[in-house]
Amino acid sequence: MTERLFNFSAGPAILPEPVLEAARSALWTFEDSGIGILEHSHRGAYFTRVIEEAVANCRKLAGIGEDYEILFLQGGASTQFFMAPMSWLGNGKTASFVNTGTWSKKAMKEANVFGDVHVAASSEDENFSYIPTNDEISWQDNAVYAHYTSNNTIAGTQFTSIPTPPSSMPLLCDASSDIFSRPIDIGAHGMVYAGAQKNLGPSGIALVILRKDLIESANEGLPSMLQYRVHAKAGSCFNTPPTFGIYIMGEVFKWILEQGGLDAMAKINSEKAAILYDFLDESEMFRGTARKDSRSNMNVTFRANSEELEASFIKEATAAGLPGLKGHRSVGGMRASIYNAFPTKGVTALVDFMKSFEQKNK
Amino acid sequence: MTERLFNFSAGPAILPEPVLEAARSALWTFEDSGIGILEHSHRGAYFTRVIEEAVANCRKLAGIGEDYEILFLQGGASTQFFMAPMSWLGNGKTASFVNTGTWSKKAMKEANVFGDVHVAASSEDENFSYIPTNDEISWQDNAVYAHYTSNNTIAGTQFTSIPTPPSSMPLLCDASSDIFSRPIDIGAHGMVYAGAQKNLGPSGIALVILRKDLIESANEGLPSMLQYRVHAKAGSCFNTPPTFGIYIMGEVFKWILEQGGLDAMAKINSEKAAILYDFLDESEMFRGTARKDSRSNMNVTFRANSEELEASFIKEATAAGLPGLKGHRSVGGMRASIYNAFPTKGVTALVDFMKSFEQKNK
Repeated sequence: MTERLFNFSAGPAILPEPVLEAARSALWTFEDSGIGILEHSHRGAYFTRVIEEAVANCRKLAGIGEDYEILFLQGGASTQFFMAPMSWLGNGKTASFVNTGTWSKKAMKEANVFGDVHVAASSEDENFSYIPTNDEISWQDNAVYAHYTSNNTIAGTQFTSIPTPPSSMPLLCDASSDIFSRPIDIGAHGMVYAGAQKNLGPSGIALVILRKDLIESANEGLPSMLQYRVHAKAGSCFNTPPTFGIYIMGEVFKWILEQGGLDAMAKINSEKAAILYDFLDESEMFRGTARKDSRSNMNVTFRANSEELEASFIKEATAAGLPGLKGHRSVGGMRASIYNAFPTKGVTALVDFMKSFEQKNK
Repeated sequence: MTERLFNFSAGPAILPEPVLEAARSALWTFEDSGIGILEHSHRGAYFTRVIEEAVANCRKLAGIGEDYEILFLQGGASTQFFMAPMSWLGNGKTASFVNTGTWSKKAMKEANVFGDVHVAASSEDENFSYIPTNDEISWQDNAVYAHYTSNNTIAGTQFTSIPTPPSSMPLLCDASSDIFSRPIDIGAHGMVYAGAQKNLGPSGIALVILRKDLIESANEGLPSMLQYRVHAKAGSCFNTPPTFGIYIMGEVFKWILEQGGLDAMAKINSEKAAILYDFLDESEMFRGTARKDSRSNMNVTFRANSEELEASFIKEATAAGLPGLKGHRSVGGMRASIYNAFPTKGVTALVDFMKSFEQKNK
């Protein structure tokens, strides 16, 4: 069996090895069923239990009450970018966004198909290297909803507290790249959504946590697949859902619970990221690119003293079994994505490699 | 390792065992990469090769030229039900449908959100137990496109030839339940689409084969994710695609090629279904429900002499290791789904079981 590498990919990303082990077995036959997990009917008893357990463990992990619906939908966060405004905007209606980078901008672009977009704050003036503070955010008073991106995968920034729009204004959060990496106050949100392929599972499935009154207030007359109420009523099985993705997500939920839940996960993630940030702060060759108060514990972005050094570094790191460190094509430099499933020893290996690279290229 | 059963599920359905074996290995590390197939970046070299090979083998299997785009999309056939009319219909525009059952009706319902629906033919008068002949279909002359469902999973009927709307009218086909089970003349269609979970792979991914001029003529101003042109331009990687589904579909394409391609597949499927239909025609307890000229080689629907016998039969068959035989909840009775990957010996086992059940309950 080929050795597995420390994979720094930003997504699809590394998954917990116990989950992969379970999936390999389930692929051939799930539990005692004699039928592989890919081959089970989504309406059969085995899969019904899988999806019910996934919902229950999701609720347990984040303390989510019955006033919220847990949905497993297809199309990733990119589908939520338009499905939310299609549900609640319309002519003359506005949504108010905090713009912290590429993903906020994509969400704003799709919202603009259905209504007006208001920019409540933006960190574009400093190349998205920081997160605006609550004082720097001016929500539009009559916006139908407010929206922010909790972690910017590309710039390596992360909100450290939840922004606070007026209490009557539902707050929507794209948490694709930091969901369940730390405790989250779902009650402060109208909706939290996340593509699975960073912290939760494979690509091709999104987790949507949605306050039930918002489901009811959504626009009608839309295609069935684009109505949250249709999916909610059918328990995410209006059409054949992505069963394997739901199975894996359920296994990841169990794994997080085994790690001690979201508090424990946050502690591990914060200590893990600190190993890398501490080195970046003392290095004379490498430097972090995000402002210190806005640093992400999920995506650590950094530069070296020259683009030539960066190219050699990425090449040599890949050869040394540390793949996936190239920064997003839109910003260059390096990025270490160290989501929940990324092991601490992988970060230590990276820092050791950086130290020796710096020494060698002094 | 638990023994695998003959799984008659209508979808998600049985997959070829060599594909499952390959997937189990790839889950831990794909080829020599040291990274599992779920964890590979969709923009990395390994996955780029996976998707390029899948497209190439799809073209090879069905002889699809460069005038058609091959797309891997999320949301299943249910998303195509609305994405097609959203792309080509509008106020005052009509699509003309052959209604052969539940799935045709669902497609018609979603089309009606965006334009007018014309029923060119329907077999509802006989509970969808037959496929209208070409002579029985009256397309609306000014329809923007024509639509049919090549195989009705629920009633167990299948078109034996492609319907022929006026040559200038693009013909759309929902081939979810019989795609690549036999040769298909893609050139006779504007678009062929299929949810993967019956003949092609896991749920959560749809194959869309689309004539390029139709992509260009589609409505603009829609959300990015709902525009075929956006997905075509990005090679199905506009957002993170369902990478595992694409990998599995690619492996299934290779497996079909190894079986001898679509001609060989058709021969196997037709002989396989005949074993069951021949028995149904001679049995005094069981009878097929579809009209003989409209019988599906994918889903064989049948009834017994009483509902009590049917209930016992399904229960005893399941206990004997033949699960998934219960008919769709909307029609009752029994259904044996015997897609490409379903082995002939499983059909023989079913017929043997039916014979002994009939003998025992005489």
